Amino acid sequence: MYKAPVDEIAFTLKHVAGLAEAIDRGAFGELGEDLVDAILGEAGRFASEEVAPLGDAGDRRGARLVGGTVETPEGWRDLYHNWIAGGWNGLTAPEAYGGQNLPHMLHVAAMEMWNSGSMAFALAPTLTMGAIEALEKHGTEVLKSVFLPKMVSGEWMGTMNLTEPHAGSDLGVLKTRAERCDDGTYRIFGQKIFITWGEHDFTDNIVHLVLARLPDAPPGTKGISLFLVPKFLVNGDGSLGARNDLFCHSLEHKLGIHGSPTCTMIYGDGRFGAEKGAVGYLVGEENRGLACMFTMMNNARLAVGMQGVAIAEAATQKAIAYAKERRQGRAPGWSGEGMSPIIEHPDVARMLLTMKALTQGSRAIAYACAHAVDMAHFAEGEEARHWQERSSLLTPIAKSFATDAGVDVASLGVQVHGGMGFIEETGAARYLRDARIAPIYEGTNGIQAIDLVTRKLPLSDGAHVRGFIAELREVTAAVAASNRKGFGETAARLDAAIADLEGATAWLLSAIRDGKLAEALAGATAYQRLFGLVLTAIYLAKGGLAEAGDGKQEQRIALCRFAAENLVSETSALEDRVTNGAESLAAARSILD
Amino acid sequence: MYKAPVDEIAFTLKHVAGLAEAIDRGAFGELGEDLVDAILGEAGRFASEEVAPLGDAGDRRGARLVGGTVETPEGWRDLYHNWIAGGWNGLTAPEAYGGQNLPHMLHVAAMEMWNSGSMAFALAPTLTMGAIEALEKHGTEVLKSVFLPKMVSGEWMGTMNLTEPHAGSDLGVLKTRAERCDDGTYRIFGQKIFITWGEHDFTDNIVHLVLARLPDAPPGTKGISLFLVPKFLVNGDGSLGARNDLFCHSLEHKLGIHGSPTCTMIYGDGRFGAEKGAVGYLVGEENRGLACMFTMMNNARLAVGMQGVAIAEAATQKAIAYAKERRQGRAPGWSGEGMSPIIEHPDVARMLLTMKALTQGSRAIAYACAHAVDMAHFAEGEEARHWQERSSLLTPIAKSFATDAGVDVASLGVQVHGGMGFIEETGAARYLRDARIAPIYEGTNGIQAIDLVTRKLPLSDGAHVRGFIAELREVTAAVAASNRKGFGETAARLDAAIADLEGATAWLLSAIRDGKLAEALAGATAYQRLFGLVLTAIYLAKGGLAEAGDGKQEQRIALCRFAAENLVSETSALEDRVTNGAESLAAARSILD
Repeated sequence: MYKAPVDEIAFTLKHVAGLAEAIDRGAFGELGEDLVDAILGEAGRFASEEVAPLGDAGDRRGARLVGGTVETPEGWRDLYHNWIAGGWNGLTAPEAYGGQNLPHMLHVAAMEMWNSGSMAFALAPTLTMGAIEALEKHGTEVLKSVFLPKMVSGEWMGTMNLTEPHAGSDLGVLKTRAERCDDGTYRIFGQKIFITWGEHDFTDNIVHLVLARLPDAPPGTKGISLFLVPKFLVNGDGSLGARNDLFCHSLEHKLGIHGSPTCTMIYGDGRFGAEKGAVGYLVGEENRGLACMFTMMNNARLAVGMQGVAIAEAATQKAIAYAKERRQGRAPGWSGEGMSPIIEHPDVARMLLTMKALTQGSRAIAYACAHAVDMAHFAEGEEARHWQERSSLLTPIAKSFATDAGVDVASLGVQVHGGMGFIEETGAARYLRDARIAPIYEGTNGIQAIDLVTRKLPLSDGAHVRGFIAELREVTAAVAASNRKGFGETAARLDAAIADLEGATAWLLSAIRDGKLAEALAGATAYQRLFGLVLTAIYLAKGGLAEAGDGKQEQRIALCRFAAENLVSETSALEDRVTNGAESLAAARSILD
Repeated sequence: MYKAPVDEIAFTLKHVAGLAEAIDRGAFGELGEDLVDAILGEAGRFASEEVAPLGDAGDRRGARLVGGTVETPEGWRDLYHNWIAGGWNGLTAPEAYGGQNLPHMLHVAAMEMWNSGSMAFALAPTLTMGAIEALEKHGTEVLKSVFLPKMVSGEWMGTMNLTEPHAGSDLGVLKTRAERCDDGTYRIFGQKIFITWGEHDFTDNIVHLVLARLPDAPPGTKGISLFLVPKFLVNGDGSLGARNDLFCHSLEHKLGIHGSPTCTMIYGDGRFGAEKGAVGYLVGEENRGLACMFTMMNNARLAVGMQGVAIAEAATQKAIAYAKERRQGRAPGWSGEGMSPIIEHPDVARMLLTMKALTQGSRAIAYACAHAVDMAHFAEGEEARHWQERSSLLTPIAKSFATDAGVDVASLGVQVHGGMGFIEETGAARYLRDARIAPIYEGTNGIQAIDLVTRKLPLSDGAHVRGFIAELREVTAAVAASNRKGFGETAARLDAAIADLEGATAWLLSAIRDGKLAEALAGATAYQRLFGLVLTAIYLAKGGLAEAGDGKQEQRIALCRFAAENLVSETSALEDRVTNGAESLAAARSILD
């Protein structure tokens, strides 16, 4: 059973991702390490003791649509109410609406642990938090005062309604329509698909944020508006009024995250009364809906990255436990009695260490991204701009690398379990099934790569990414200067990997500048992985260099060395793919016709 | 819907894997290319038109245990009977028992297509064929005359009962027990798990081959005997007699291949009569059961490799079809109206071409392995020994590379489908679920790597593998000599990749010779993948060089170039992992404690 790695998480936040330094500098006001530890400890306890025990059962039973309402798995409603009773829903929300305004770093760390317990369950508040953010930034004071307090407390949950059957990644073509009413409200008509937690029995009301198009809107992405559309209208005194004209038509039958209802939502077909049209309230300006959405999209992408980290951690724990128990054959050098635990076989140890390194690397990248988000929020002026760029750059890497790691690590976890891994009751297969959606939703990892190469690399005309790479060089210099034997060839190998990253970066910046978009995009995914691999090793090195006094420094150095000498060598092939791969890709394209 | 790629398969058999040359030399007697084409065409028609349409429904419904018998999915029993009516079950079986004694190459090609239609369904005859092979090689004349004709025709099916809860990869510790009876028969007692198609409603009788231990057997693998244990005893006139003392206790709830019942079998608990013990007949000599099993294990491993190829092909077809239909965004260079089909996005094209290259490469490796099996069977003396070594060398590579490709390609297929890939009705997720068992059963891919490095490389003191690598050099020389511009940098890149393979091979041979087993095994999996990648590119090159006159040569050259310039560069990292990775792996091992 999953046990939240609170110490490792706290170490990574403080000593790898920058939290300790930020606290020392007073960037987060009164916040001290003691409070950080207390929050992480309690979030971890909740994840291990409350969420994780209901994860497998929730997967087996799944969410079900019964007579128009969604029944969640047994025990999940109580779980949710225990969770909001702990105040967890408002961790980063503004104090004005009952939140605690704590750094985003703490939030992603806690989210990781809840997702490890059950990704399907932890998805529910993830959506609410996104809705809170969009509403807080773009809603009118009236909307905020009516909805935000209850959404921050968790009494009501929120959703995001973007996708339609023909509008997935490309929202410009969506068809859901909004009509203006004389009283300043709108009526919404249309169908939305893939709406996560679009209907359920956790809360009395559900606050949908819906993208739709006004009759006179310009075509494409510049004609999309954002509306708040509650399941139940709210009376002047805050009590619930009439049922709004929307409902969940059906649930998807998915590969994984079975406990999470994925809904097709119908707006405005008149099911609950004579007058058709779901009552909606404009959020932000007309035709500026996509901009409103984008303000929350970066954080949503990081949140999905955390799901990758979370699954990787849980799958690694399970695989290590199994490999220590299960005995088969005799590993080389095994001197014990009878068969050796399979963890003694070098190939199994390699799988487990690969899982560890990818998990810890993804975690560090994601936390570093959250750190940048925090610094952009708390800092000012030029410093804030710097951190804004850093979070922009890291977001697609954190999302894609961590979610790919989630799938790869979960798949390795199945493999370590052998035949038992294919049996559902073991639980290893669930991690693979759950993990598989994360590289797809909130922008596929291919779309993240396009974003990274075409929008993030050119930030400050390439100066930001170059500055970041220079920072990475400082880490390898520190490794070399440390003279610690345990690092082995780490410094030399990381220097070579950084050189690959530099080469690929320069090539891409030049290709983008020269308008060679097809050539740049041909290697975008390879570049994204290259960046993630380098960061994995760099952050592992940073962890190895940190003197945390917890007796684990040698282990961290050994894991870093394993990554440097066994995983990172892939960077030269990736660099080659970026800088030399486009031509043969284009030449082979016609094969597919 | 899957359409068997009969032309591509025939091309690969004839011009890449060696069938045309072998036919020209008369190695297969009367067999001509016309007959090959006719057989492949009909096997492909059956796969596309009969098997594939029942694949998804079979997955959804799954096999069910109802009152002690297993109900197979609707339509599958008729499908099986149509299939055996076509004579497919006895394709490679001896003519003396009603088989057609055709080359194994044809068999694996046909198996590939049926597995593409439904891996869960095609598993059923796979097991029977293994049982036929073991029985034919090691059974007494009486046993053979009673059982083989009906097993060859498919009237009765066969199973293999190896695994027990504590005896998976390591069969030496199995506990099922056999007692001698005065009449020369045996009584079997014990429990077997993970028995594929151990019980079902396809046939009136089921012939179980069961590994068990005699009371006076030596411990370990030298004390295991093989028994034939029919579900129903057979009377002197060939009619079915009493129910034997065995039954299916339960079915596993699995990640994939839901249509295939995976049974826990109980032998000898007296359920059907007063006298306990399942009647078994010795196959081969007492205590030599494992040797009997091994005779069929190589072919079973290749058969599982074919499942990887099959899933990769089916997943690739589905993804290409979707990517042509689905429109999102505007790809660079897209001049059509509205959104472009996603296949126009470079990243999607890259995924699809990677899928194509891995599929075609795995197929060629597997067919080349089958060719070696055939040549070892039909040739004599030194030549037979040569081909025996070749099939031994290629088997672990074919099994592991193709099954890893099956998972990787199916996962890419899900990714190409975006959100739809996560929805079960789409069918892309089924391929991933089904594919995930293949790297595990019939010896995990880690065990294949141990076999490759410790038993196959040392064949003829390393001369065989060195000779094989020299053959690969001839292909790159021919590419260079061809002067075809379409090959791009293929020759130089493949030469570099072969050098990586040579370096890793020499290092491993030396490590094995010096008794550095742990060091060799630390890189065994990386080496196995390195070998498979090189073979993929070499066989694609061989295909590109072949003048088949089918108008597809340029496409084959382009795919080869894509593999050479985009996939093969990974070999240097793999070589590095083999020759330099062991130390940091050993140093990090204690992290896992």
